[in-house]
Amino acid sequence: MAPTKAPDSSRRSDRSRRAIHDAALALVTEVGYRRTTIEGIAARAGVGKQTIYRWWPSKAAVLMDAFLDLAGRSAEGAGSGGEAQSDEAAQGIPDTGDLVADLKLVLRATVDELNDPVLEAPTRALTAEGIVDAKLGAEFVHKLLDPQLALYVTRLRAAQEAGDVRAGVDPRIALELLIGPLMHRWLLRTLPLTHAYADEIVDYAVGGLAPRP
Amino acid sequence: MAPTKAPDSSRRSDRSRRAIHDAALALVTEVGYRRTTIEGIAARAGVGKQTIYRWWPSKAAVLMDAFLDLAGRSAEGAGSGGEAQSDEAAQGIPDTGDLVADLKLVLRATVDELNDPVLEAPTRALTAEGIVDAKLGAEFVHKLLDPQLALYVTRLRAAQEAGDVRAGVDPRIALELLIGPLMHRWLLRTLPLTHAYADEIVDYAVGGLAPRP
Repeated sequence: MAPTKAPDSSRRSDRSRRAIHDAALALVTEVGYRRTTIEGIAARAGVGKQTIYRWWPSKAAVLMDAFLDLAGRSAEGAGSGGEAQSDEAAQGIPDTGDLVADLKLVLRATVDELNDPVLEAPTRALTAEGIVDAKLGAEFVHKLLDPQLALYVTRLRAAQEAGDVRAGVDPRIALELLIGPLMHRWLLRTLPLTHAYADEIVDYAVGGLAPRP
Repeated sequence: MAPTKAPDSSRRSDRSRRAIHDAALALVTEVGYRRTTIEGIAARAGVGKQTIYRWWPSKAAVLMDAFLDLAGRSAEGAGSGGEAQSDEAAQGIPDTGDLVADLKLVLRATVDELNDPVLEAPTRALTAEGIVDAKLGAEFVHKLLDPQLALYVTRLRAAQEAGDVRAGVDPRIALELLIGPLMHRWLLRTLPLTHAYADEIVDYAVGGLAPRP
């Protein structure tokens, strides 16, 4: 199939969007969320302020898109390195029938993502601002976090049907036993966030969700 | 026993410290950590800058002390209301021999503390800054968080000796199954933080730490 011929204006528009994303992420990393402005992003990206306002209603909206774009690129990069994990993560949590193995795969990938030096600074800046700004925090959760948490609910429901998780467990609460410890350690930097830690958390948590003898 | 007679200068000094703590907490709540300055704290507390520098080496040090003072006062307040929980929390996690009940008591008290409107704003401000500022975050963890986590390690070790937690479990990791989900839900405001949630987390987690049949 022949590729659709992209007109010059569409290519220019893609280049501008990418430049705006990069500028927004660089600024939030360097000066924090509050001191990042639409003006600053425009200046750094080499576009007019009106270009940004044409595409996004607010600074928060630019940053959300920039962040989604960055996370997507990072996943693609990992994928082109020969790893199948990022594709799996995009499609959902794998279901090989081995709940422990599937969750370890996904939590190890989450550890790698949280430790990724390119993602770390903007993720921290955005999360920190969401902690003090309830409105931004709610957007962050709704657009970025909830879709990921839904994948855990799906996998844990399948595990309930397979008899690996007991019927009375609430999957929406159970997933926090997996995600909560990782985020706590990463956000507060209490101790190093490693694959070994992710494995231990999965072993303890899945034991607590399993049917009781 | 007759109370020791406090000289006027000592009472004045206590009053100044309290005023400085209150000013620091009010400022960090209103304008965030970065825009809180020693000058601003001094002006609001009605003391000279040098008074602050005589007692504390940095803004972070003032805020840590202010925060410890506030948490202590909040615990006293809860205690005088007829609750024994805060005394128990200060002395450690109770050990009645019923691990699930003891942990539910402590996690419910933690839920109340996190939902306390007086503590919430400064705790969020300090935590958010620690997330982006690694040095401040390390101080926060070392002075405020680690002593609390140590109480869980002690209680979980006792549970291992009592046979309620299996020998192979690392208490320092296991406690994150309890604390991590609460902090995750509170920090990111994903869903309401309730006693029922704390209870469920304890039930799932303790099941995962128990000896395997």
